[in-house]
Amino acid sequence: MLKASIVLMLPLALSAQNLMPVPAKIQSGAGRLAIDRNFAFIQLTGYREPRLEAAAARLVEHVSRKTGIPMAPAIGLHPPSPPLIVYCDHASAPVQSVAEDESYRLTVTAMGARLDAPNPLGILHGMETFLQLVDLDATGFGVPAVTIEDHPRFPWRGLMLDAGRHFFPVADVKRTLDAMAAVKLNVFHWHLSENQGFRVESKLFPKLQELGSDGQYYTQDQVRDVIAYARDRGIRVIPEFDMPGHSTAWFVGYPELASAPGPYQIERHWGIFDPAMDPTREETYQFLDAFIGEMAALFPDEYFHIGGDEVNGKQWDANPRIQEFMRAHGIKSNAELQAYFTRRVQTIVAKHGKKMIGWDEILTPGMPSDILVQSWRGPKALADAARQGVSGILSNGYYLDLGYSAAHHYAVDPLGDGAADLTPEQRKRVLGGEACMWSEFVTPELLDLRVWPRTAAIAERFWSPQDVTDVADMYRRLEVVSRDLEWLGLQHVSQYERMLTRLAGGGPVAPVRTLADVVEPVKDYAREEAHQYDAFSPLNRLIDAARPDSETVRRFTALVDRRSPADLATLREYLIAWRDNQARLTPVLQNSALLAEDAGISANLSAIASAALEALDHPGSGAKFQEILDRAKQPQAELLLSVEPPIRKLIESTR
Amino acid sequence: MLKASIVLMLPLALSAQNLMPVPAKIQSGAGRLAIDRNFAFIQLTGYREPRLEAAAARLVEHVSRKTGIPMAPAIGLHPPSPPLIVYCDHASAPVQSVAEDESYRLTVTAMGARLDAPNPLGILHGMETFLQLVDLDATGFGVPAVTIEDHPRFPWRGLMLDAGRHFFPVADVKRTLDAMAAVKLNVFHWHLSENQGFRVESKLFPKLQELGSDGQYYTQDQVRDVIAYARDRGIRVIPEFDMPGHSTAWFVGYPELASAPGPYQIERHWGIFDPAMDPTREETYQFLDAFIGEMAALFPDEYFHIGGDEVNGKQWDANPRIQEFMRAHGIKSNAELQAYFTRRVQTIVAKHGKKMIGWDEILTPGMPSDILVQSWRGPKALADAARQGVSGILSNGYYLDLGYSAAHHYAVDPLGDGAADLTPEQRKRVLGGEACMWSEFVTPELLDLRVWPRTAAIAERFWSPQDVTDVADMYRRLEVVSRDLEWLGLQHVSQYERMLTRLAGGGPVAPVRTLADVVEPVKDYAREEAHQYDAFSPLNRLIDAARPDSETVRRFTALVDRRSPADLATLREYLIAWRDNQARLTPVLQNSALLAEDAGISANLSAIASAALEALDHPGSGAKFQEILDRAKQPQAELLLSVEPPIRKLIESTR
Repeated sequence: MLKASIVLMLPLALSAQNLMPVPAKIQSGAGRLAIDRNFAFIQLTGYREPRLEAAAARLVEHVSRKTGIPMAPAIGLHPPSPPLIVYCDHASAPVQSVAEDESYRLTVTAMGARLDAPNPLGILHGMETFLQLVDLDATGFGVPAVTIEDHPRFPWRGLMLDAGRHFFPVADVKRTLDAMAAVKLNVFHWHLSENQGFRVESKLFPKLQELGSDGQYYTQDQVRDVIAYARDRGIRVIPEFDMPGHSTAWFVGYPELASAPGPYQIERHWGIFDPAMDPTREETYQFLDAFIGEMAALFPDEYFHIGGDEVNGKQWDANPRIQEFMRAHGIKSNAELQAYFTRRVQTIVAKHGKKMIGWDEILTPGMPSDILVQSWRGPKALADAARQGVSGILSNGYYLDLGYSAAHHYAVDPLGDGAADLTPEQRKRVLGGEACMWSEFVTPELLDLRVWPRTAAIAERFWSPQDVTDVADMYRRLEVVSRDLEWLGLQHVSQYERMLTRLAGGGPVAPVRTLADVVEPVKDYAREEAHQYDAFSPLNRLIDAARPDSETVRRFTALVDRRSPADLATLREYLIAWRDNQARLTPVLQNSALLAEDAGISANLSAIASAALEALDHPGSGAKFQEILDRAKQPQAELLLSVEPPIRKLIESTR
Repeated sequence: MLKASIVLMLPLALSAQNLMPVPAKIQSGAGRLAIDRNFAFIQLTGYREPRLEAAAARLVEHVSRKTGIPMAPAIGLHPPSPPLIVYCDHASAPVQSVAEDESYRLTVTAMGARLDAPNPLGILHGMETFLQLVDLDATGFGVPAVTIEDHPRFPWRGLMLDAGRHFFPVADVKRTLDAMAAVKLNVFHWHLSENQGFRVESKLFPKLQELGSDGQYYTQDQVRDVIAYARDRGIRVIPEFDMPGHSTAWFVGYPELASAPGPYQIERHWGIFDPAMDPTREETYQFLDAFIGEMAALFPDEYFHIGGDEVNGKQWDANPRIQEFMRAHGIKSNAELQAYFTRRVQTIVAKHGKKMIGWDEILTPGMPSDILVQSWRGPKALADAARQGVSGILSNGYYLDLGYSAAHHYAVDPLGDGAADLTPEQRKRVLGGEACMWSEFVTPELLDLRVWPRTAAIAERFWSPQDVTDVADMYRRLEVVSRDLEWLGLQHVSQYERMLTRLAGGGPVAPVRTLADVVEPVKDYAREEAHQYDAFSPLNRLIDAARPDSETVRRFTALVDRRSPADLATLREYLIAWRDNQARLTPVLQNSALLAEDAGISANLSAIASAALEALDHPGSGAKFQEILDRAKQPQAELLLSVEPPIRKLIESTR
């Protein structure tokens, strides 16, 4: 295992301290490389390929956007020496694999910069590091002198996007890939079929998309375009076609695949549903053989994801023919029946030259060890797989849909609890992890807001040395990355602002923002329990805008924790603004059907801020506010008041 | 001339009061049409064409974006009656002309809405009106009951974009067209050649774009795509190829066109330059005949813009052969020589089936009356043209690059001063006007920030009845339109925020915003006089972010003007924030090379805010602050302190 080796000969310049993910090794130098229009004269040496040319052009464009300095070779003045010399030793694998060397070395001096890597993947990562290093100081734009030797801790650093429950057009996917590249993620896991939609064009079975997608699917040309776009950014694309469950949308066009007679409709609700493929008919495997063959040719990655999660078995229980098959073959449970199905599918996947990946459920006795388990259940399942010789990646703890903070996800380690007693050999089988963006509550309008910037913290967990764990420092750097992502075109900030503007319904936005900045979504699956949702539910309420991380609350909490008399005036300013916000927000609430449900949480905010002010004025009075605080702790309109804990702490500290 | 007929039987609902441009006639009804997912079931009746289908789908998409309610026929529940019935009587001209009937009638009741128009253009406008009417109230999203009868005051309502000095990719052009359609502008004037760049692919003369554009040009396919996109939105596209001056970029590839020997380079500076086409060689006209023929086939509009402005004549003076030609033909001045050139070009333009349009200079004796004059000189030139039987449009007063407020442009009327003594027949020759976005100081990053929302006020001038002139009401509605434009994807708000973030260089953005919100650019051409600029100058300073209109200053000014004791606390809040901003901004200024130049204006802001607070505390003390106020009035770093006038007024009021 690696240790973070931050060797400080000189104090690190600010932007070198801002890197996310933190590099394996970084050493500060003296001076600063100025960035001007001549940055366009990057020189590529060593092994060349179009991807490197494109990457260099993109780096120039991104530096130009970040600085506002126009840059293009045509408009530059040939500098005496190139501002950045890139040396790439050799090609990477034609199809990017999990075994690639992704390391790079970046040296910046006042005279120029040099980026070395064994292959283009390291160059791509090093260029992202360089981009992050560009900053503005009193002398202008530049990059501090620094030497970085960097490589990832885990080879599998992914983001899963669920395009099944809600569809995300290609532009959204590409924007996501841009941001992934910026934080050195290297696997885009594309969840392409669900009860609620089948999202890829099949030429062999066109009723899959024609009847199963409401017209919302990716054509094969679009898929190829996305794969090329991802490859250009050092990102593998792994398709998931979930089976035998989560497959209602397949059955709209091909009801014969199901374990109960049709007809089927596209599912409009969220949850786990009964329809499942019939594992007992040979025709099912003939269909899957042809379909997987078609998709295996479309998606070049060596892995092919077959899902495999959450089969409730009810259709199997109810089908006499399936029950008869189980008796005849000595299959004693639905789990065993699914294992039979999975083994058959694995054979098909292998026949088409791919390795199978699936959720925990696919790991059953008799599976070959070259499958890969993606664990939604937890690190223990992953450790168990590793002990059985099966590789795995962790997603439990990285579900972006559950409303948790960046700090929450940051604390989860693929080699954390449960991996302690693995042998070094077994540890190597834990290849990394994937953040998962399940999309019951995500539309294109909300995508960036849900995925970013939190996923950058997860990306750091997958890339940086294991002992990089300082949460406060992570948040400091996360804010910087968040700004950088906006330059790339990510919209997490503007999406939030637009949502608040809509909620205000023509009224002033400021009091809406004041409330929105101190609330967070309820956690886990509490949202689905609180409200009846379906695929048509408008996602335009405060809960949809609410962010799991509040910079305001973090700052307020830091002041409360510091307990410095010097901060008292600032604390009061916060409290007064929150106390008075109720009066400002009320007329807005009254004219906005969307905000009406938030009257309660707004009243609670005002009440606890009032209480805190009173407690500050009358030390010792804190005890009487218990009820107000307890009430403010209750979820309201699927929201939690994230400022309640520090206010409680402040009030208790005055006793 | 039309009068605004706002017949109020019931008070107008809020969103009906927010329309921009104000319709010719609007009458409020009782009730409200609820908007829900079934809005997707718009019904088209009468004349049908693909453009109408596309417009209906776009309206549904825009209403969906604005409300956050998912809408698509596939996911709706067939409502008992359509939410909106559209009746289009007949087709418009195959190539949209200046003579089109653009009227429409929109009736909304609680039961449904109906939109009628003679042809698709009126339908397009009526749909934009409908979209603006959608709002949120305590009952949810809806449209107030209303009857609108609407038509434009002028048939020519344009926006010119200078893609010559800086290039704007197709995505920027399309976004601009989206916003133009939203405010009912109908002419996109595309300034495609300049000293600094030739921006269209010519297949006959490929060196035009190959050598004259730094690779930044529109392919013919892209041009056709833009034209189709514009037509879909009821917008004509008029190309401008500026000649015989403003043409250096042509000469890089074809020096033989010029009046002095080459070689030529793409011009990198701003200003008026010597190179001009040689009007005395027949080869010039042979070239232009072929070139104009090629472009006339590419651009379907009946008008073709040949520029014609700002020829300084120096190359002509210095060329003995040209001087000899003038003597031989009795041409006594460069103006006469240009007139000769323009007549020759007009013949070519006419031969290719087009009417010529050009700047004031083209209006010379002997021109046929079907040309059109675009006046950069002023309304008087336009009135003179009208008296000579020549039609014209006004651009003087609508130059968006000169740093003026929306109110300034709003006050300019194509039929204002100078048109008073025109006969009704002559008045009809004033077809409208065009806002002009010259791009010395505009890059794609700044485009929306420079053009919007101000251009919406100009669009209202061109569309609404002449007596719609209330500036305060215009600003109130402009803020609403500005928010609506963000839903369409316009980026004027996010561009501003990103600029401020860059300026802050990693420091806090809030004090940068506080300063930025109360400064405005210097006016007219003062910017070019203050600083040496060229085509490579980074446009990333506070002056580039600065907006000509400040909502903050408008609000503060309103408080000062109201002189109500009740506002005193609010006035003080503003002043304290400005006074204290200097201390907050100083550490940021010291670490940002971009902001360093703004130390002076920040100090001035602090000083006059301090002075005002002192004057409020000590009535009668105002006189002693004259010097501080006068200093604050001086431009600093190309910026004016827009809050100086109301602060001066406040201080003077305390005497």
